[in-house]
Amino acid sequence: MYYHDKRLQYPVRVESPDPVFARMLQQAIGGVEGEIRVCMQYFFQAWGARGPTTKYRDMLLHTATEEIGHIEMLATAVAMNLETAPTKVQEAGAADKVVGAVMGGENPRHMVEGMLHRHILSTGMAAFPANCEGVPFDMSHIYASGNLAADMYCNVAAEATGRTLAVRLSNATNDPGMKDMLHFMIARDTMHQEQWLAVIEELGGPAGALPIPNSFPQSEEHQKFNYNFFATARDGTPPPAGRWTSGPSLDGKGEFSVVQNEPMGEEPVLGPARPDSGAQNEQIG
Amino acid sequence: MYYHDKRLQYPVRVESPDPVFARMLQQAIGGVEGEIRVCMQYFFQAWGARGPTTKYRDMLLHTATEEIGHIEMLATAVAMNLETAPTKVQEAGAADKVVGAVMGGENPRHMVEGMLHRHILSTGMAAFPANCEGVPFDMSHIYASGNLAADMYCNVAAEATGRTLAVRLSNATNDPGMKDMLHFMIARDTMHQEQWLAVIEELGGPAGALPIPNSFPQSEEHQKFNYNFFATARDGTPPPAGRWTSGPSLDGKGEFSVVQNEPMGEEPVLGPARPDSGAQNEQIG
Amino acid sequence: MYYHDKRLQYPVRVESPDPVFARMLQQAIGGVEGEIRVCMQYFFQAWGARGPTTKYRDMLLHTATEEIGHIEMLATAVAMNLETAPTKVQEAGAADKVVGAVMGGENPRHMVEGMLHRHILSTGMAAFPANCEGVPFDMSHIYASGNLAADMYCNVAAEATGRTLAVRLSNATNDPGMKDMLHFMIARDTMHQEQWLAVIEELGGPAGALPIPNSFPQSEEHQKFNYNFFATARDGTPPPAGRWTSGPSLDGKGEFSVVQNEPMGEEPVLGPARPDSGAQNEQIG
Amino acid sequence: MYYHDKRLQYPVRVESPDPVFARMLQQAIGGVEGEIRVCMQYFFQAWGARGPTTKYRDMLLHTATEEIGHIEMLATAVAMNLETAPTKVQEAGAADKVVGAVMGGENPRHMVEGMLHRHILSTGMAAFPANCEGVPFDMSHIYASGNLAADMYCNVAAEATGRTLAVRLSNATNDPGMKDMLHFMIARDTMHQEQWLAVIEELGGPAGALPIPNSFPQSEEHQKFNYNFFATARDGTPPPAGRWTSGPSLDGKGEFSVVQNEPMGEEPVLGPARPDSGAQNEQIG
Amino acid sequence: MYYHDKRLQYPVRVESPDPVFARMLQQAIGGVEGEIRVCMQYFFQAWGARGPTTKYRDMLLHTATEEIGHIEMLATAVAMNLETAPTKVQEAGAADKVVGAVMGGENPRHMVEGMLHRHILSTGMAAFPANCEGVPFDMSHIYASGNLAADMYCNVAAEATGRTLAVRLSNATNDPGMKDMLHFMIARDTMHQEQWLAVIEELGGPAGALPIPNSFPQSEEHQKFNYNFFATARDGTPPPAGRWTSGPSLDGKGEFSVVQNEPMGEEPVLGPARPDSGAQNEQIG
Amino acid sequence: MYYHDKRLQYPVRVESPDPVFARMLQQAIGGVEGEIRVCMQYFFQAWGARGPTTKYRDMLLHTATEEIGHIEMLATAVAMNLETAPTKVQEAGAADKVVGAVMGGENPRHMVEGMLHRHILSTGMAAFPANCEGVPFDMSHIYASGNLAADMYCNVAAEATGRTLAVRLSNATNDPGMKDMLHFMIARDTMHQEQWLAVIEELGGPAGALPIPNSFPQSEEHQKFNYNFFATARDGTPPPAGRWTSGPSLDGKGEFSVVQNEPMGEEPVLGPARPDSGAQNEQIG
Repeated sequence: MYYHDKRLQYPVRVESPDPVFARMLQQAIGGVEGEIRVCMQYFFQAWGARGPTTKYRDMLLHTATEEIGHIEMLATAVAMNLETAPTKVQEAGAADKVVGAVMGGENPRHMVEGMLHRHILSTGMAAFPANCEGVPFDMSHIYASGNLAADMYCNVAAEATGRTLAVRLSNATNDPGMKDMLHFMIARDTMHQEQWLAVIEELGGPAGALPIPNSFPQSEEHQKFNYNFFATARDGTPPPAGRWTSGPSLDGKGEFSVVQNEPMGEEPVLGPARPDSGAQNEQIG
Repeated sequence: MYYHDKRLQYPVRVESPDPVFARMLQQAIGGVEGEIRVCMQYFFQAWGARGPTTKYRDMLLHTATEEIGHIEMLATAVAMNLETAPTKVQEAGAADKVVGAVMGGENPRHMVEGMLHRHILSTGMAAFPANCEGVPFDMSHIYASGNLAADMYCNVAAEATGRTLAVRLSNATNDPGMKDMLHFMIARDTMHQEQWLAVIEELGGPAGALPIPNSFPQSEEHQKFNYNFFATARDGTPPPAGRWTSGPSLDGKGEFSVVQNEPMGEEPVLGPARPDSGAQNEQIG
Repeated sequence: MYYHDKRLQYPVRVESPDPVFARMLQQAIGGVEGEIRVCMQYFFQAWGARGPTTKYRDMLLHTATEEIGHIEMLATAVAMNLETAPTKVQEAGAADKVVGAVMGGENPRHMVEGMLHRHILSTGMAAFPANCEGVPFDMSHIYASGNLAADMYCNVAAEATGRTLAVRLSNATNDPGMKDMLHFMIARDTMHQEQWLAVIEELGGPAGALPIPNSFPQSEEHQKFNYNFFATARDGTPPPAGRWTSGPSLDGKGEFSVVQNEPMGEEPVLGPARPDSGAQNEQIG
Repeated sequence: MYYHDKRLQYPVRVESPDPVFARMLQQAIGGVEGEIRVCMQYFFQAWGARGPTTKYRDMLLHTATEEIGHIEMLATAVAMNLETAPTKVQEAGAADKVVGAVMGGENPRHMVEGMLHRHILSTGMAAFPANCEGVPFDMSHIYASGNLAADMYCNVAAEATGRTLAVRLSNATNDPGMKDMLHFMIARDTMHQEQWLAVIEELGGPAGALPIPNSFPQSEEHQKFNYNFFATARDGTPPPAGRWTSGPSLDGKGEFSVVQNEPMGEEPVLGPARPDSGAQNEQIG
Repeated sequence: MYYHDKRLQYPVRVESPDPVFARMLQQAIGGVEGEIRVCMQYFFQAWGARGPTTKYRDMLLHTATEEIGHIEMLATAVAMNLETAPTKVQEAGAADKVVGAVMGGENPRHMVEGMLHRHILSTGMAAFPANCEGVPFDMSHIYASGNLAADMYCNVAAEATGRTLAVRLSNATNDPGMKDMLHFMIARDTMHQEQWLAVIEELGGPAGALPIPNSFPQSEEHQKFNYNFFATARDGTPPPAGRWTSGPSLDGKGEFSVVQNEPMGEEPVLGPARPDSGAQNEQIG
Repeated sequence: MYYHDKRLQYPVRVESPDPVFARMLQQAIGGVEGEIRVCMQYFFQAWGARGPTTKYRDMLLHTATEEIGHIEMLATAVAMNLETAPTKVQEAGAADKVVGAVMGGENPRHMVEGMLHRHILSTGMAAFPANCEGVPFDMSHIYASGNLAADMYCNVAAEATGRTLAVRLSNATNDPGMKDMLHFMIARDTMHQEQWLAVIEELGGPAGALPIPNSFPQSEEHQKFNYNFFATARDGTPPPAGRWTSGPSLDGKGEFSVVQNEPMGEEPVLGPARPDSGAQNEQIG
């Protein structure tokens, strides 16, 4: 079960509130590269973890719990960027005119257009769980496959796209407070990329973990096709040479080669439609 | 641009049509672990590839094009499992009674229940781009981040969950034709896992590629926090020791440690609601 | 604006309540071939109708309003199929055991499995706006393009798939009340298919309406490619001959031919990634 | 920020694992009446809370944090219902045959059909954030409007449908462990219904809080229409008398009456389509 | 069944067409706080209404039918805001330049950006059933639980957020016609908030209706936990005192108190993965 | 199975990169009128085609394969519009300032607002499978009904809205390269509209194909209602006369007429709620 401290994990400061940046920050909350995703992904992996020990469940709970605090920081940052005051105090300065006018009728059009309209219409100047275009986060992005190694690669993928997003957000702002918060998050994403790859290493690295799942006897897969790059250029032009076109495979269990893909099957012929299947008469045999 | 051959990449045979297995196969078509996903993911990565060479665009096109043929094989397999005949000829045998009756009114209830109703009601006994529960595939699952290394890890994640799915499907059927097709696909997934990791290796492996994106100067991230495991147990219990709690980081650029997470920020205090923001009077300062 | 009569457009009778059929009927409520779709589609086409007269707005309102009554009939049919009594009176007969037990704990498992669980858990034995697999209807299926002829073809498509669905539902039940209701709806779908095609005829038929939109000067499209069937077989095998491979086009403005598709463009070369775009260093020129 | 304890808030015991009940429990995790919804809803309301005090933010954090633990309990219950053993030990008893066979090839069909296929294919026998039909939870259901009173009614709605769901789940199982867990959750939902209504009372009850938002001067709404029930029966039949058809309004600011709805506006006539808007020629004035 | 009058319920006038405001109005059509939602919600509640009388079905039909007219008014308002003429006549004035140019190629960029692109590309200057960011309305937001009291609170929630939205829209425009229409709608939302709460009062108010559902014997819920506020601060800080921390409960059936939340359960230990479940070998016991 | 040529079907040139136009082009990639839709729709129709010959499967494969190349062209066009250089070479000219600054911190606000933020944050300046508002494409839009004639009308609808979109895009740009590409695509859409209607003609035209499905004996539909326009005006005003109000039906099988719609059914009375269904006590009979 869970506990909270009403203070934030790391300080969130906004010196110059910027509604357009608030909109961009939404991607880190409710985008597929965002924090709701990693938080829920680690939780569901933890809650379904099976195996001889509870070691991985335990580790995942630590990090999933940390991530709630990241969503909280970002949601706070969105709300602050929708305010006129740098941190806590409402002031009637320049920024106030911008946002205040939106709600009051003066309506400086170029700012209204930049804001996500739902920040005005749906939330009263607060964050919500959608991406920077207003598309709500959808829980089908929570990957928890029941295979530990597959899950770890899903996590690396999430943190790699997440850190890339955080870097882009950092590039898009000049606000010192926002940069500070993002540089903290970028550091955490560095650790989290490492952390999931470290599990793979602990599981034996590529030689031990691949192919995933390693519990399926590789002798049953069609071994004629399991380390071949299939080329599909119409005129047979081979693909450019790379680590994947020749030499030993990464798991040490095969040898890469290039094969020109050709049909091994036939043209499929499905049976005619049944008389009572709602087809046209012409389809019924 | 693209070409087709109306023959299949690999033979698709069904000896004993099984509508429930048709339903399960839908997961490999329109599930998030499925073939539409990898096909479209590799295409969008290819079409947006930037860099000094077109090498990666080229490679991705080969494999994306191969994947169209996998969707085709699975769609064919679904249609065949919804038929009564093993391969091409309609027969009035036992299986026929089962499916035929569904449409004809005899209605052997236990079979109707097992089928995905939309196979009866929406497609006239054919595959459609949704998962095994009928949830349509949603293109937000196409990951193409513009960062080559991040994309490769997304691809490994897709193929790791994809091969896991194919193994589970293989375990769920006794049909020799279906097993043969799936064992071909399992082999291809082995190669594809290898292939994307081989790109990472070509890019220097963890030491060269991490942290992703490697173009952001690591000196700018908060280096106090970039190789620490943050522990969040209420009572301070440390996480179980693992490869990620001590020793050198995988990229060789840091040293792992464990830190008890404590608030570094304050309780955030947002400004009161504006008078014209649609809040209750009590929220307006 | 709108009015109601609390009586139904057409009688809804269920002689033998059948929870599995209730589930199937959901497709006609909240499936993409269903009645919410046509109702809302005709309303949005009406409300946005532009042109010198209000004739089409007027016609669309009549039919959209009729369709609300169809959703109502189907929702009533779902609720009745989830009851034990044929029409109005609760009885303790055979059907009662089936459904009653679900809620009461006896739990005849094979019936529970056939029912859509959300009928038990979310609605208390009533219809809801989702399809037969529980996927909620999504308003992106409301096609209202602002082009009258395009909209009419969208409507024909909706009624053609809608009547096909109604036929399949009729085939799936033996209940005389349900068949009677569906045969009424099938007749209405016949009329609605006709009705939208009649608008096209009034607009001059194919010769007058095609290509849609007919307001774009056809001289500006690349006339070398506007009546050619492009063949994409790798080995140049032509497609089977059909009405579309030779002879005059349907709009009388061109002549059909078959052309083997070949690349007219070059391999695209995108610029390298920008230094601050979150790419890997290797992608930055 | 947040902390965890790896123990559960309340014991989760399953005496007779039941895969069909696991499927039903998913509704309480990822259904719109479920625990992810209330958890995230309370968090986003807290993180965006504005007003002279942080009192409501503070309260909401306590309860949102509690709800994480409820998701955890339910996810644990799903995993346990997908196992063969009552609590911790794998046994080869009757239940084992059922589920074990699914993966092993014996395939007792009637059980496969009852399970959510994604429990077999996607998660390896664990919970995931979707409802009982496999539809992923969608964050558009997180209501946080920026108006405190509106939010409280959204919360009452969530807990009222949530407790109704928990009662239905309790009725659907005979397992003592599951009933015990659900009766704990039902009690918590009682409190949470009370809690949000208590905020309304603290804000002055209906007289003080209504109409929401109370910050809009009621003198500006069309006062001729603000306490009238509009009747829309075609033949003018009045609605049945009720608390809402006569007598003082609940906020004490008006008097209820019934009015027959009649058009006050005209038939709208939109301008013709513009020449370059992609309409048909016939729509262009 | 249903009837229409082609005139509007209330006049819709636009003096200064404003494409950005058209975009904002979309939220009231296809947002979760909008009119499609309440219209369909009341219809589905009506069509599934169970109980000794048809009184509530009857009432719901009146109001659901009224709401169709509200969608119609808003859709008309969107179309008019996308035109150049105040009401009926196309003129070549200032507004014309703005919108006309969009389609004609002059392309005054700052206006194009403010418009929802789909108004240009998909609808030919008409409304469509999506919110102000273009996200289509999704019928999972139709709450009809089968519990009358729960449904009424869902309706209050919908009208509370709906009136808040209408107030925000009114604040965002200076157009007298738009303000007039919105002030009519705000008044109707006042009545609808009252109306649903009046049903609760008729059902006995909190004492009679709570806890919802009142048909579950409260003796079966865990009475030790049903009127306690659970505090989750890590350091045991109690929540701020409020109406919900002490004193009698709102339903008069209990007494509020505050309890520090502590784990009552144990760390869950799931069984190991099965050998044929697609897990890694390391997870298999 | 499938092959590729890395050259494009038709040249894609951008003389003046325009990020706002890139955003608009997304509608043709991932909008419901776009190319992913037709590509996947034709593939799924082909893969499920039933009937005495494989003629239609064959034809559909040719065109589906062509459409992959259209997505590719559009994705290339999006990436090029997000660059500064007309075709291949990066230059530091005017356009560079615009886009380059976005990532570099100068942040010319009016351009950032016009761009789809996800092009900056999620893709690193490349296309992705969503529409012009960032809503991901959803595969429920793939219509493949199993009825050949219904599918053909779905295809006409798709190409009619698709050509309308392409015309609107062409009107919205002055870039010669983009106009050239779009005029090629407009020509292809002309052919594709023709092509699907030609199948209908080959199937006998309206007289042969209607009503769809023509395999349901029309004698079983309620023939009293199958060629009548139902009028729903409250006061009985008839609809305006049109091709659909009198004269022979288009299929030659009936005669159109106008009928005033009146209830033929009764007010439905559902049974009371069951005691254990989670309803309020007041609903339980």
